[in-house]
Amino acid sequence: MTNDVIRDIGEQGVLKRLQRFCPSDIVGDDAAIMPNPEPGQLLVVTTDVLVDGIHFSDRTTSAEDVGWRAVAANLSDLAAMGSSPLGITVGLSLPGDVAVSWVERLYQGMSECLQPYNTPIVGGDVCQSPVITVSITAFGQVLPQRVMRRSNAKVGDAIVVTGVHGASRVGLELLLNPEFGKDLNEKERSRLIQAHQRPKPRLDILPQLWESLASQSPILNNNPVPDQPNNQGGFCTNATIDSQKKVPLPAPTNPVPDQPSVGSILNTSPIPLTAMDSSDGLADAIAQICRASGMGAVVEWDAIPIPSVLPQLASPEQVWDWVLYGGEDFELVLCLSEPLAQVFVEKFAAGSAIIGSITSGTEVCLRDSTGRYADELLTLSRGFQHF
Amino acid sequence: MTNDVIRDIGEQGVLKRLQRFCPSDIVGDDAAIMPNPEPGQLLVVTTDVLVDGIHFSDRTTSAEDVGWRAVAANLSDLAAMGSSPLGITVGLSLPGDVAVSWVERLYQGMSECLQPYNTPIVGGDVCQSPVITVSITAFGQVLPQRVMRRSNAKVGDAIVVTGVHGASRVGLELLLNPEFGKDLNEKERSRLIQAHQRPKPRLDILPQLWESLASQSPILNNNPVPDQPNNQGGFCTNATIDSQKKVPLPAPTNPVPDQPSVGSILNTSPIPLTAMDSSDGLADAIAQICRASGMGAVVEWDAIPIPSVLPQLASPEQVWDWVLYGGEDFELVLCLSEPLAQVFVEKFAAGSAIIGSITSGTEVCLRDSTGRYADELLTLSRGFQHF
Repeated sequence: MTNDVIRDIGEQGVLKRLQRFCPSDIVGDDAAIMPNPEPGQLLVVTTDVLVDGIHFSDRTTSAEDVGWRAVAANLSDLAAMGSSPLGITVGLSLPGDVAVSWVERLYQGMSECLQPYNTPIVGGDVCQSPVITVSITAFGQVLPQRVMRRSNAKVGDAIVVTGVHGASRVGLELLLNPEFGKDLNEKERSRLIQAHQRPKPRLDILPQLWESLASQSPILNNNPVPDQPNNQGGFCTNATIDSQKKVPLPAPTNPVPDQPSVGSILNTSPIPLTAMDSSDGLADAIAQICRASGMGAVVEWDAIPIPSVLPQLASPEQVWDWVLYGGEDFELVLCLSEPLAQVFVEKFAAGSAIIGSITSGTEVCLRDSTGRYADELLTLSRGFQHF
Repeated sequence: MTNDVIRDIGEQGVLKRLQRFCPSDIVGDDAAIMPNPEPGQLLVVTTDVLVDGIHFSDRTTSAEDVGWRAVAANLSDLAAMGSSPLGITVGLSLPGDVAVSWVERLYQGMSECLQPYNTPIVGGDVCQSPVITVSITAFGQVLPQRVMRRSNAKVGDAIVVTGVHGASRVGLELLLNPEFGKDLNEKERSRLIQAHQRPKPRLDILPQLWESLASQSPILNNNPVPDQPNNQGGFCTNATIDSQKKVPLPAPTNPVPDQPSVGSILNTSPIPLTAMDSSDGLADAIAQICRASGMGAVVEWDAIPIPSVLPQLASPEQVWDWVLYGGEDFELVLCLSEPLAQVFVEKFAAGSAIIGSITSGTEVCLRDSTGRYADELLTLSRGFQHF
């Protein structure tokens, strides 16, 4: 039975096997009843499509990892909007000769990625296709004053990344090229491969960001910060927190109404936040934010966190290319006021760094003060484009 | 410029062209802010995937019609849950050599299908693939007491269809086979082709159903029925309504709380309603309802509305097969108490018909009292299976 292919058990058979990955009371109908957003929260929706041979490959990606990465891509988009997940639907099309066990392992990987967030698979569709395609739609919720957009960057904002870039691309190279990185020890190798196969959406960053904001601008935080710092023991376990210097949070002065209209709330948001995830590459994220905001940027190469072993693994040109254009690191790129960025990076979000600042004009300039690389003007066309 | 293919303008170029089909304030970010369900309404979500060569073909389907049908399939699922649409997302994967104009016409067709319901395309994803795949997720809202499920059918319920079956399959045959239906007049021919290319989701049926319910069971209707029948001038323009006999609606005795939990409300729904759409075939819908409800059914062939010209177009075997298994008519199959079904069919929903009833046991028996066809036991395996 373990060698069954999809054609052997048919659509109904597949659906039956997949229902064990879904809450039992909300599947098996024409549509699913979803958890509503909580009162006062806005509904957020995002869709990502992964295609066999384009976005993943049997050579480098197990079924579990395809599932994990498909979910991670969507949760990363939710994180970039400032929102937390409510549920996902899965549209799966695949040839009839795919092993049933492959599909079960795909859903297993999805479930593993969703598990820390208690987020259910609420439904979907399975149909025939000449090529495996996984189309996920994820739903989240966000308080109106916490919506982050690409288009909110202002002159003088610090550009912050929440972690290293280039790790996913190096991990891919390790999987593709047996000659590559032979001198790496097992721990380093597996950490880089993990970065490619099991990237973590940075939903863990959001509470750290809200706390940074609260310490600067209490108006933005609806949930009072407890006396003990509550981000120890969270996802970012090596966070360094100076609780002595924490500014206590006054009561919110601008409570959120119960049923705000999207437009009115978004327009009155006290400090519009700026974010995008770096799934299509760090360079692409910076360029997209600048284009959407009508701004430029200066980015300092040396300030970008990269895997420590990277410079000894690859040529300077490869390092530059993988860090800026490699993609799929699923970090967040934030534009924050300089003081907020300082607090965020130094006190709340270990591993994050200020890598540059937003400028007037429309040029995105990458410069290397150490002189190894010549200055480069970023363009959207060098980022990961899907055609 | 009109001969551009996707590869020529790239992902950013495609997104730019498609943004004109979306509300300007909610696209171009990592995710979209969606309209929340209204207070007291539940969020409903459904996903459908259409694949080139499997669900549509260049020979029979223009880009506009692919878009229309993809949206119609999702709206039909929302209708089958008793819900009205809030928005959709579109996950589109396609080869780089597809004409840009094809994609624009695809979105044009989607917009045309959405237009009567003022439902926006709120976002999506566009990526490369060897095969065109359109994956749509649609969101709707429904009052808890109006949720319709497949699993609610009870012994004695009348099985109701909301319109003819077989029309879409005949329309397909007219497009595929130039020898077929040569004697049809132009009006008949175009009506049948339209049934295949531009099927209408039966969202128009819902107000008619709520009014039928209100006339029977005022508890289920939250919106008092106005003095004038409000389904004239709706989607079903040839509805025959006997307003003289309309029972006035008392005030609701069981008002919906502001923030009901899904479970508590669904369990206390006064009269659970049963519905499924017939997109995978009439036989499949009846069999699925029976399986989900743990029931059987008897269906009377002669009671099933079919296109009047069908018997003279095809052999008796073909007629049987197309009506029961042809699929894609996008009608609703409802199971209603006998008195409610009578009121619904006779007073509110012109074109609908009672075609059988729910029985104990698990067999679905199709019988023809005229004796043309032998009795047949329906099985799920003869319905449209996707592998």
